[in-house]
Amino acid sequence: MAGQSRNENLPNLKKSISELTPHVSNMNAWAIGVDLGAQSMRGAWVNTKGQLHDPIKWETKVDEGKEKVLNRMVALVEELMKNPPEGVNPEKDALGVGFAIPGILHLKKGLVVQSPHFPDWKRFSVHEKLRKKLKLPVFVDNDANTGAIGEKVFGICKPYDHFVYCTLGTGIGGATFLNGDIYHGSIGMAGEIGHITVDPQGLPEATGNRGSVELYASGSGLMRVIEELREKYSEARVDNPEDLYELYKRGNKYENFAEVEKIFNDMGEALGVMLANVVNTLDPQAICFSGGLTMAWKAFSRKMIQITMERSYVARHNKLRILCTNLARNSNFIESGVVGGASLVFIDALRQSQEEVVSAKAVKKPPTLKAVSNE
Amino acid sequence: MAGQSRNENLPNLKKSISELTPHVSNMNAWAIGVDLGAQSMRGAWVNTKGQLHDPIKWETKVDEGKEKVLNRMVALVEELMKNPPEGVNPEKDALGVGFAIPGILHLKKGLVVQSPHFPDWKRFSVHEKLRKKLKLPVFVDNDANTGAIGEKVFGICKPYDHFVYCTLGTGIGGATFLNGDIYHGSIGMAGEIGHITVDPQGLPEATGNRGSVELYASGSGLMRVIEELREKYSEARVDNPEDLYELYKRGNKYENFAEVEKIFNDMGEALGVMLANVVNTLDPQAICFSGGLTMAWKAFSRKMIQITMERSYVARHNKLRILCTNLARNSNFIESGVVGGASLVFIDALRQSQEEVVSAKAVKKPPTLKAVSNE
Repeated sequence: MAGQSRNENLPNLKKSISELTPHVSNMNAWAIGVDLGAQSMRGAWVNTKGQLHDPIKWETKVDEGKEKVLNRMVALVEELMKNPPEGVNPEKDALGVGFAIPGILHLKKGLVVQSPHFPDWKRFSVHEKLRKKLKLPVFVDNDANTGAIGEKVFGICKPYDHFVYCTLGTGIGGATFLNGDIYHGSIGMAGEIGHITVDPQGLPEATGNRGSVELYASGSGLMRVIEELREKYSEARVDNPEDLYELYKRGNKYENFAEVEKIFNDMGEALGVMLANVVNTLDPQAICFSGGLTMAWKAFSRKMIQITMERSYVARHNKLRILCTNLARNSNFIESGVVGGASLVFIDALRQSQEEVVSAKAVKKPPTLKAVSNE
Repeated sequence: MAGQSRNENLPNLKKSISELTPHVSNMNAWAIGVDLGAQSMRGAWVNTKGQLHDPIKWETKVDEGKEKVLNRMVALVEELMKNPPEGVNPEKDALGVGFAIPGILHLKKGLVVQSPHFPDWKRFSVHEKLRKKLKLPVFVDNDANTGAIGEKVFGICKPYDHFVYCTLGTGIGGATFLNGDIYHGSIGMAGEIGHITVDPQGLPEATGNRGSVELYASGSGLMRVIEELREKYSEARVDNPEDLYELYKRGNKYENFAEVEKIFNDMGEALGVMLANVVNTLDPQAICFSGGLTMAWKAFSRKMIQITMERSYVARHNKLRILCTNLARNSNFIESGVVGGASLVFIDALRQSQEEVVSAKAVKKPPTLKAVSNE
């Protein structure tokens, strides 16, 4: 979303994320990534190897209202600026800040259109507001797009030019990475796969749809089923999806295991119908899952993969890979949003210098590369 | 699919179909388009205004086997070559032949993987075989992709860079036109939206899926419902979807109108669920329908549009246009496949000359443009 000047007489010089990715680790630079969640906001300095320096996690406090949340995001960045990695001059060396924002963004206008867990973020011009308050270049995308870019640049999707990214959290989000780039759609809303219908006669929803996959396979969907389980077995100590997975891991040692297994099978089945629809539409090389619920991967993925393969001959023909993120595996700190936010910055920096090199060649001037820090 | 040489040191010079489309009508050239259908194959000379010269329609005769069908396709092209438009030297002036082929194509390998109405077309190397038998440059794509390109270059989708194209025929096919180009997917199978599940508990299918939209909204799906109607009302003279639509047009004058109306409403509802899924995934500017069943547009489209809008807030936000083809409107000859086949050729010719111009500039040689005929 950064402004770009371009010589209109030149052919399309824009390199794809796939083309730029191999060059990220050759840069010697730092960026700041910030991941905004409903419960917490996280931020860190990230280098071009995908390593984090000094991660911070603050409470989001949604109920204080959007302006205060925005000010906390700014304060978090300023806090990071006060404590840069060794040898880094935060004002001069940081390439920029990339924000992963939950909800539906109208990218062309830089607006959050709506965000399920931020009820007052309606047509909220987050990009402009952040840009005015911060001295660094600011990049914004929704958390799914940002996560997908992080997965491409530093994670398990490095080999792929065509994949669909799916976050299993409180809700279900998605991103479409096609032909080596995020495909944003006509106004930036592509990838809303959590709203794919998997049961047309299912429960009604606030969005006007019925029976979307989010009702059966997201954190909030599981909470509804957990309530039902608790009503049935008052002795069951299940407060959240994590507890449910703990019961699952006990296997037949837990007397009502069959019911817990069915919950995860239903989750897998709903995700399988969703994936088959997506794969029949897009023929991607891979699907990549991330988000909190991937902790229960072993409980739902087998059914999900089985249903996807049964319902999509495209998946059978294109040898679809169904993958779980490998970012955040060695850390309690959930990295993918932060790493993804920083990836927005790195990719843009490479793209800008690439364009400057080619433009400079075309007009016979020496290239003026962006200065990047030396550790 | 034509071979292309490219200077690897140059940036990406490939212009999109959207970028090339405005230049098609400036060329003074002819191509041959051929549309292969289950019942008939159609072919014609097409000029860069999208006008047809001397259309031919032959029976396909699928049951004679793939080699004979292929030979008939070659013979049809040879027949057209014998009768060129006035002033056109067929050997020198035809830019090429573009074929619209039904079924699932593995574009990278130039194979028909499978084709529902051509049971012996399994891993059939149609592109290579046609190329060997014809003296003109040969272009092949599936009928949905070809139709979408025809709709972009000459039809109702001219203003759009992001749209989904859907053919309602014996089966349901689709194509995804994203960022100004056909998005083919990882192996050329993107756009198989006819297999999107709209009733997970629905009827089983040969592909392994259950309850896909094709069961409820395609010609073969309607034939199943028509059988049921005939069993119930032995006096009903309904042999095909056309007859069903004739009954619909009689309105309340037909005593069982409510049942006929319900059939088209069910069709619209199934298509609406499919569209909502596609629109939530891709956020396109428009959806364009073509194919034989669009003759009943007035009977099913209102319900379809209502359901799409109810089930997809993306459709409500991006002001989605749901359109019916305007090719073939003034003709009994179904043009979209033939015009689309020729469009493959025109776009490739423009792309090649574009690349030659830019390459030539880069290496300081004068451009060598392809010769095109003068009428």
